Amino acid sequence: MGSVPFVFPMPAAIVGADVEGAPTFMTIAYCGVVNNGPAMVAIGSNPGHYTMRGIEEHGSFSINIPSENLVARTDYVGMHSGATTDKSGVFDVFYGECDHAPLIRECPVNLACRVAKRLDIGGKDAIVIGEVVQCYVSGDALTDGAPDIEKMRPILYATGSRTYWGIGEKVGDAWNIGATYEP
Amino acid sequence: MGSVPFVFPMPAAIVGADVEGAPTFMTIAYCGVVNNGPAMVAIGSNPGHYTMRGIEEHGSFSINIPSENLVARTDYVGMHSGATTDKSGVFDVFYGECDHAPLIRECPVNLACRVAKRLDIGGKDAIVIGEVVQCYVSGDALTDGAPDIEKMRPILYATGSRTYWGIGEKVGDAWNIGATYEP
Repeated sequence: MGSVPFVFPMPAAIVGADVEGAPTFMTIAYCGVVNNGPAMVAIGSNPGHYTMRGIEEHGSFSINIPSENLVARTDYVGMHSGATTDKSGVFDVFYGECDHAPLIRECPVNLACRVAKRLDIGGKDAIVIGEVVQCYVSGDALTDGAPDIEKMRPILYATGSRTYWGIGEKVGDAWNIGATYEP
Repeated sequence: MGSVPFVFPMPAAIVGADVEGAPTFMTIAYCGVVNNGPAMVAIGSNPGHYTMRGIEEHGSFSINIPSENLVARTDYVGMHSGATTDKSGVFDVFYGECDHAPLIRECPVNLACRVAKRLDIGGKDAIVIGEVVQCYVSGDALTDGAPDIEKMRPILYATGSRTYWGIGEKVGDAWNIGATYEP
């Protein structure tokens, strides 16, 4: 298939930043955890995107994990550039421990991130690695204090077909179901 | 919740490398696309993991996307270290355009990657950014030549509950369903 970014699944995450004094958002699938202790998340985006300006200026951004019921708004903020569309009213915004990292109250999970590293190593996109300064999870997405993916109902992005999907059935416990394999 | 890596969903991907002349594999959820043109994928892993030795030595590795039916083997290669368990026979291995990037025939998608950058920016994990030299997709995971996530049935990893999940229902078309949102 050539040099194609075929990781399955990808998240459908919403990145937020403040640009010219107002929050703006963009949808990204190019997003993955890359470190822990502290947690770090890498994102890739064309540096020309409006939201990237705020990340450059303030060195902070948010990653918000939308639920299925937010799929239209999630797609909307990906379809329209903040350069021509004011997206500050699409969501109910709050701020946490990171200045200029607008967090989306409707999303069950919010990561307030500080830029740890910015890389340009060829290709169309700039790579930004954010250190998670603080994570916020809605109470109704928790079970016994732990995040519950069934309550959260995150959206998956399928590259190639450019479609969004929900989560399905549980297929196993990690560090457990592997014991059923006999080499 | 503090500095926690709460991105949902994460993939359950299998990273392969050659160590001491034999292929070995590890399961990772810390994996995301970060660039395109060429495609690049970032992974994070404790540098002490056996598979990481091969990545260091050869500067190449594979990312393999398992289907639900491979969940036990996917977990197995994550539960056991290559230092004490020979995992070279767990999968049917082939090699493509990248020397020392062992590809798993049973997986519907394989990415043969060359290390573009290795970063140590604090935290427990080393970050490796791989350029996708070539992507291989099984014919039975394609529909009209494009990757079909329903045929592929990738596994999602849910952090916190440490569980594996399948994909569910389609909830929308990207660059499309956003038009139904009225600001």
